Amino acid sequence: MKILGIDPGLRTTGFGIIHKKGNALHYIASGTVKTPAEAGLPLRLKTIFDGVNEIITQYRPDCAAIEKVFVNVNPQSTLLLGQARGAAISALVASELAVYEFTALQIKQAVVGHGKAQKKQVQEMVQRLLSLPGIPGSDAADALGVAICHAHGFDAIKALEKAAVLSNENTFRIRRGRLIR
Amino acid sequence: MKILGIDPGLRTTGFGIIHKKGNALHYIASGTVKTPAEAGLPLRLKTIFDGVNEIITQYRPDCAAIEKVFVNVNPQSTLLLGQARGAAISALVASELAVYEFTALQIKQAVVGHGKAQKKQVQEMVQRLLSLPGIPGSDAADALGVAICHAHGFDAIKALEKAAVLSNENTFRIRRGRLIR
Repeated sequence: MKILGIDPGLRTTGFGIIHKKGNALHYIASGTVKTPAEAGLPLRLKTIFDGVNEIITQYRPDCAAIEKVFVNVNPQSTLLLGQARGAAISALVASELAVYEFTALQIKQAVVGHGKAQKKQVQEMVQRLLSLPGIPGSDAADALGVAICHAHGFDAIKALEKAAVLSNENTFRIRRGRLIR
Repeated sequence: MKILGIDPGLRTTGFGIIHKKGNALHYIASGTVKTPAEAGLPLRLKTIFDGVNEIITQYRPDCAAIEKVFVNVNPQSTLLLGQARGAAISALVASELAVYEFTALQIKQAVVGHGKAQKKQVQEMVQRLLSLPGIPGSDAADALGVAICHAHGFDAIKALEKAAVLSNENTFRIRRGRLIR
């Protein structure tokens, strides 16, 4: 299964593609889609939409995972980020890809083992988990991170949580997408 | 020139198509794209993206005008609205349509003559300007309104303003997209 991870942003949208075979994860590609700051909003959204489309055409992922974005202290930034995310998701769903959403907290838990990890730690763990020769850039690392999060079946664990099979939050922790008692 | 107006929203996206020939405006079509509230966000964005695409395929507009959205009191709503707008704009730019953005204030000024118009007044003026047999629904009226706003060359007037050809804001008003001294 090939998973495309997306870390959306109006200025820079990170992407990362990994291959999951059994429990092994392999790196395929990663990078960023950058939009020209001086362009109008519609053109910037087009750049994101076209960029994600190109990635899909080139790498043919089986599904996609995208970071959930949060409301910013600056409402105008929230609005811009929302639109960027809308453009990225549009490109994914236009290609009939199933899109799975994960919060930054879930991604950090899946990749680093706890939700308070720093950006640097995420980058280092992504490098280690995918046996990369160097540390990936921050946006690409976040995109690879959300793909790893999906690969580790984080959503299945979340579903368990929701189903209240595990009723007491304090009795378990999630470490790299696995349940630790 | 056929203009497609869009009033974006996650639940309901209004659309309206008008034809401009010289100074005359003619109504072609209007309606709404509704998304299922129970569906996940990616599917709702797909509904908007596919819906706008269908409208473009059916009516072949020459350009598009879309209402600028504003930050909401509720940041979560702002984020959702932003994503809906991102999906709608993605569909427009994916079809290579030029997209013009107008604020609610500009639309009200262009359609009703002043920026403090109520929703009802916008609906009534849209009906009158396009000689409609009945009052259009609120979302469709807003979409037709933004198309009318673009048809009236409101952006040209805004450009003049920005170029400071008219340096004193108090010396003129804009009425139905025209400059009044």
